[in-house]
Parts: sequence; C-alpha cells; structure tokens
Amino acid sequence: MDLGLLYSAGKDSSLAALALDSFYDVTLVTATFGITDDWKHAERTAETTAFDFRTLELNPDIANAAVEQLRTDGFPRNAIQSVHLHALEQLASEEFAAIADGTRRDDRVPSVSRAQAQSLEDRHGVDYIAPLSGFGRGAVDRLVSAHLDVESGPSENISKADYEAELRALLAERDGKAAVSEIFPDHEQTYVTGFNSP
Amino acid sequence: MDLGLLYSAGKDSSLAALALDSFYDVTLVTATFGITDDWKHAERTAETTAFDFRTLELNPDIANAAVEQLRTDGFPRNAIQSVHLHALEQLASEEFAAIADGTRRDDRVPSVSRAQAQSLEDRHGVDYIAPLSGFGRGAVDRLVSAHLDVESGPSENISKADYEAELRALLAERDGKAAVSEIFPDHEQTYVTGFNSP
Repeated sequence: MDLGLLYSAGKDSSLAALALDSFYDVTLVTATFGITDDWKHAERTAETTAFDFRTLELNPDIANAAVEQLRTDGFPRNAIQSVHLHALEQLASEEFAAIADGTRRDDRVPSVSRAQAQSLEDRHGVDYIAPLSGFGRGAVDRLVSAHLDVESGPSENISKADYEAELRALLAERDGKAAVSEIFPDHEQTYVTGFNSP
Repeated sequence: MDLGLLYSAGKDSSLAALALDSFYDVTLVTATFGITDDWKHAERTAETTAFDFRTLELNPDIANAAVEQLRTDGFPRNAIQSVHLHALEQLASEEFAAIADGTRRDDRVPSVSRAQAQSLEDRHGVDYIAPLSGFGRGAVDRLVSAHLDVESGPSENISKADYEAELRALLAERDGKAAVSEIFPDHEQTYVTGFNSP
C-alpha cells in the first residue's frame, strides 16, 4: 500500500520512514512553499536510501499567514502547527492510500489530536499514521543512534528541509535577521545524512 | 535491544510485534494470574513465529480487586484498565530495556496516558513503547488482513490469552455464568493463529 510521509530529513521523519517500511511502500514527501530550495537537503538524503522522493507544493497564502502569526505571537508554536496541518491536508489530497508524519509522543508541536486525525481520514478517505506517537524521547534517541547518521547543531547551521527554514527566510526578508533570532529560540537541530537500515 | 511486549495473541498485540520487529529483539510476554491456562493459546501462536515467548506472573490480589470492580461497575472498562496498568508495572520490573503493548489510537481501554508512560519510564528506567498508538482502526484492519492469519467470533468461542478470559473465569466461579454475560458485552474477538511476516 502506497504511503506518503511528510519528510524533512530530520531525525523524527527519518525514523518514521524506517518504522513504516515493513508495512507500506513509503514515499518521502517534502513540503515546500517555494520560498527557498531547502527541500533539496531532503532530496539529497532520500537519494542515499531506497525510498522514493517527491515534493509537495504548499499554498503561499499559508506562509504569509504563518509569518503574521509569528509576528503576533513572538514565538513559533502556532505558526508551525498551522503549517503542519495545512501540509497534511495537501498530502491527504494526493493519491496516497495512507499518509504519515514524524510526530512523537512528547512533541508539543506539531501535534495532531485524535479528532483531527479522524477528520482527516474521514474527509479524504485515507489512513493517517503517526508511527512515532507511541515512542518517548529516550526511545527515539536510542533508535536514532542505532539506525541513522546525523549531523547536529544550531538551527542556522543545519540544512534540513522543515517548514521552519522557509518561515525563517520569509521573516528575515521582511523584518531582518534580528527578528528571526528573536522569535525562533536557538535550539539544536538534526540533519540526517543517511540511514542504516534496521 | 531487548523488548518485552505484552502479548495476548489478539490482532493488536500481534501487529505490534511486527511493527517493533525491525527495531528491537522482541519477546512475546503473556501475563497470567494463574487462574486458567489461557496463556497457552498465546504460546501456541508464538511457536509459529520467530519471536521468543514467556509468561509474566500477575498478583492474584489484583484479580480479586478487578472482580470486585466488575461487580461494582457492572461493566469491564475500569477493571481491564487496572489489570493492564498492573501488568505494565510487572513487565517494567523485569530485565527488559524496553517494554510495549498493543494499545491503538482509538482504544478507550486499555489506555496509557503520556503522564503514565513517562512515570513508568522514569521509575523503572525502561522505554515504554505503544507502537500502534498512531494507527487508527482502518489502518489496523488493513494491516491485519495483509499480515496476520486470524479466527474471529464471540468472546466465549475464541481462545486468546487476554486478561478478560481470566477475569471472566474468576467471576463465573464466584457468581455464575449469567453474571459474566451480564457484565461483559458480547463483542467480536480475534485470535491470531499465525503471522505472515511483512
């Protein structure tokens, strides 16, 4: 069964791909507003694996709304959440029988409630799977060490392909780089350079 | 890494075993109060797979308390939930680095909250994994069809090895068979007779 997995080349979505591999024909799908070419970082990682890869076009209006939200809130949580839900809606409209993401048990954001999952499934006639939602932080870290090759560092040095990169770029273009470092806390990011298949 | 999975030979815990197989050395662990020999149904299924099998002894006081709860409530939900949490505590006290169960996204019971999961992990120094907690009913049904051989029918005809079987037996012994059919709704059960490895 064909499954489209929202893919950023971060550790969570990479581990999700491995978790789903025995049950589904997984395609790694990187969502992009077309603001930057950061999706190519995900393509580069995908090329080192046996998974298919494609991009998914997001609506630029959602990026603009997300940047307004960032300015209003002063923190990224709500903006990231609304972009993630939009990406799932777009993915659910494609031809996959099942869709998935890398959300974990301990994630505050993005998070998809049971009701949101059920609604997505009912409206689009797809299965929505969150294969890591029953895994805590410790388990994920141990599995990442065992199964993935990663680079890690602060957000501005790590080139992955999540929504954050495009929102940061759009915000920097409008309000300057200082606005970006004010709104996005300096947290450690990981970029997966390759998989050690389990 | 060694993982002990609470195993009943039902479809959920069987699918959980397949979901975990690429990441862990999974042992199928069937919990028993020693009231009946129903655990042997799980052993029989386990013998058709490549997974190790063992039993886990539960505290008979918990079975007695669960039967009291059944009598008070008139429905099985709370009794099953408390037995499941007890079984996870017992399993977490064993030598496994990680423990797991077959709880699904749409299960009302048993269910393990994030806070309960975190507490179990912190107190016992184990990872607790619920590999199906990000899978809805439709996805589980489709994967069961593809990967498991199942028999299904009403509870009294299907011989699996869940807590319900032992609680039913204990209640029947005390209050007679009529009490059992009053408290336990007549629902369809599944017994897995074999795995088609993915």
